[in-house]
Amino acid sequence: MSLTAYMDDLGRAARAAATQMAAASTAAKNTALLALARRLREAGPSLAEANARDLAGAAELSGPLRDRLKLDAKTLATVAEGCEQIAAMPDPVGEITGVKRRPTGISVGQMRVPLGVFGMIYESRPNVTIEAASLAIKSGNACILRGGSEAIHSNLALAEIVSASLEEAGLPRAAVQLVNTTDRAAVGLLISSPQWVDVIIPRGGKGLIERISAEAKVPVIKHLDGNCHSYVDEQVDLAQAVKVVDNAKTQKYSPCNATESLLVHAAQAKAFLPLIAEVFTAKGVEMRGCGRTCALLPAAVPATEEDWSTEYLAPIISIKVVDSLDEAIAHINRYGSHHTDAILTTNHPNAMRFLREVDSASVMVNASTRFADGFEYGLGAEIGISTDKFHARGPVGLEGLTSMKWVVLGQGEVRG
Amino acid sequence: MSLTAYMDDLGRAARAAATQMAAASTAAKNTALLALARRLREAGPSLAEANARDLAGAAELSGPLRDRLKLDAKTLATVAEGCEQIAAMPDPVGEITGVKRRPTGISVGQMRVPLGVFGMIYESRPNVTIEAASLAIKSGNACILRGGSEAIHSNLALAEIVSASLEEAGLPRAAVQLVNTTDRAAVGLLISSPQWVDVIIPRGGKGLIERISAEAKVPVIKHLDGNCHSYVDEQVDLAQAVKVVDNAKTQKYSPCNATESLLVHAAQAKAFLPLIAEVFTAKGVEMRGCGRTCALLPAAVPATEEDWSTEYLAPIISIKVVDSLDEAIAHINRYGSHHTDAILTTNHPNAMRFLREVDSASVMVNASTRFADGFEYGLGAEIGISTDKFHARGPVGLEGLTSMKWVVLGQGEVRG
Repeated sequence: MSLTAYMDDLGRAARAAATQMAAASTAAKNTALLALARRLREAGPSLAEANARDLAGAAELSGPLRDRLKLDAKTLATVAEGCEQIAAMPDPVGEITGVKRRPTGISVGQMRVPLGVFGMIYESRPNVTIEAASLAIKSGNACILRGGSEAIHSNLALAEIVSASLEEAGLPRAAVQLVNTTDRAAVGLLISSPQWVDVIIPRGGKGLIERISAEAKVPVIKHLDGNCHSYVDEQVDLAQAVKVVDNAKTQKYSPCNATESLLVHAAQAKAFLPLIAEVFTAKGVEMRGCGRTCALLPAAVPATEEDWSTEYLAPIISIKVVDSLDEAIAHINRYGSHHTDAILTTNHPNAMRFLREVDSASVMVNASTRFADGFEYGLGAEIGISTDKFHARGPVGLEGLTSMKWVVLGQGEVRG
Repeated sequence: MSLTAYMDDLGRAARAAATQMAAASTAAKNTALLALARRLREAGPSLAEANARDLAGAAELSGPLRDRLKLDAKTLATVAEGCEQIAAMPDPVGEITGVKRRPTGISVGQMRVPLGVFGMIYESRPNVTIEAASLAIKSGNACILRGGSEAIHSNLALAEIVSASLEEAGLPRAAVQLVNTTDRAAVGLLISSPQWVDVIIPRGGKGLIERISAEAKVPVIKHLDGNCHSYVDEQVDLAQAVKVVDNAKTQKYSPCNATESLLVHAAQAKAFLPLIAEVFTAKGVEMRGCGRTCALLPAAVPATEEDWSTEYLAPIISIKVVDSLDEAIAHINRYGSHHTDAILTTNHPNAMRFLREVDSASVMVNASTRFADGFEYGLGAEIGISTDKFHARGPVGLEGLTSMKWVVLGQGEVRG
């Protein structure tokens, strides 16, 4: 069979499964999720064998990359627990909101329904296969998954476990399908088939996501970089600001919600910068500052224009002294990546202006940017983080995989 | 100046204006809208002259098309009233919803904010210029408008009136800009500039919208065809069903929410079809039926496979007898255009299944499909109707021009 025919088969089966999943009862979906959790915990030699094949094929990969591939009992227990948590969450499908009586007599409201079919393209970690599958099941969507080539055997074995769990609950096996070839052309077909796929969710490096966004013929929930800012305002609790900025930068360097750039109001620069510099120096964080920062901090090196736009994901921070809240907001909107930005302030009007005027998916007052996360926000699960404004923004949970359709309840009304 | 440089100038000015509009007060936005209403009512010779030039250039157009171009006092009074209605509506921007305390101590909620810049591409009627401008102003967005070449002089004069109204309210003139050239390449640039435009809203024929959707590099709120169904269920109030189906088909033939296809449960076919056929025959509506329909209705002609997918926008209706609700739902999901579909029934479980399982932007029980409209739904205004599932679905009002960002309110919390 040609690749096009194969992908069309997957698409056709996904569409048919999506119709059944949209109508599936909450009980059936939860049964499938709990069956999946059980089957993952009991996973026998066929999964271990498949994973061993991937690991053998990945001999040339570095230690951390190989670790991410590994499906040991602990990893399986964690993803199984995730499935149970999703089963315990409320079903987003079928919620009817805002029903209002209109002067004509009809009642108009909105009903939450699944999007239909989503495609997910991801690299390396095979546990993403289960995360995507469990979110698809609970949200009543079907999905077509395309994992990394280095994890193909593990992913195929996991997809078989998912399909068996769906079948056990009386749901269509094809609600979750994995592309069974590592041919790169499959990605091109998946992202240009609006007849089969309603939205594409890529998870991976910026290069992958930019390429997919540029070429896709269907909507993309895309997560580009996280160049997050913490801004220390003119009126501030200094000790609190040091604690929060420290956490935002150093609690973990690699996540997209770590602060990469620190802005400090000129009135606080002399008091605040030496305090935070002491923390950063002790933790080995390189400071790249504007002229005024460098004048105050001997340990800082001069920042270049490029530093203001850079997501380091490393123990490096750029630091700029600003003269006003306006300058801080303008800087963030110009150089930031519209991901997550925080103000540290005791001034209420400034807090409200920051929330309103900073054009980012998450805006925070007196909290660490590291909180920008689906679990921390109470979404229960996260299919991705969107740096776009259209449809879902920021952490995307089950609701991001649904849409609201209009419902009209009448008693025989006609239009005059 | 090259066209690219010109469009970049528009884009840059729109981005700058969007930032100011997002922060604009409700009072300033309403002042601009009321000034716009006043200026439209008082519009002097320069607008009349511009409109006369367009009408003179459109001498070869048919009567109805020329009528749509005409900006007389009555048309201007209507659009001015529209501006006043939008001024009276609540401001969607700044609404904060769902704020919940999390176990970590932070409070997390969502704030409604403008999308940024929208581009609108439309044909013929110059009053769309004012509708788009007034929705942009109220929703705190900037917009770049590209009207039809036959209305270019009227549109430029209207855009000048809009900019003067914005200026009067202390808002940026560039919040609403009109492309001042009829060069078709401008459309291509507009729809492929994500750096300047957040969403494109095309209004026009299916061909225009398909072309734009295929080529756009930014999200499109697209409205394709409206192949709407009315389904008469097994248990039904026959007199009510006749009244509603009559209205859905014949109240007006040209709107996208008119019913184009009638499905009738076999158990009601013998009773219902002759009743509705009498109405249709009296009104000159051509009936194209399946075999069972034609056997019951001598006036019907046989329908072809193509009829089931056709949006007639004319006094023609396709009619099919089905054996079950399942068959009706499957038929609608297969042949419909996911716009608006209605069930006529007295059976509650069937009504709920229809609402849930028909995959359309509007689903109705015992009401005419003609109600699918932003004004009838209480949106106050309508920028378009979306047949997509992503972001906004069905009639799109002010809320469809906004997005929800996350707000986090802390007291110095850090992530552990």
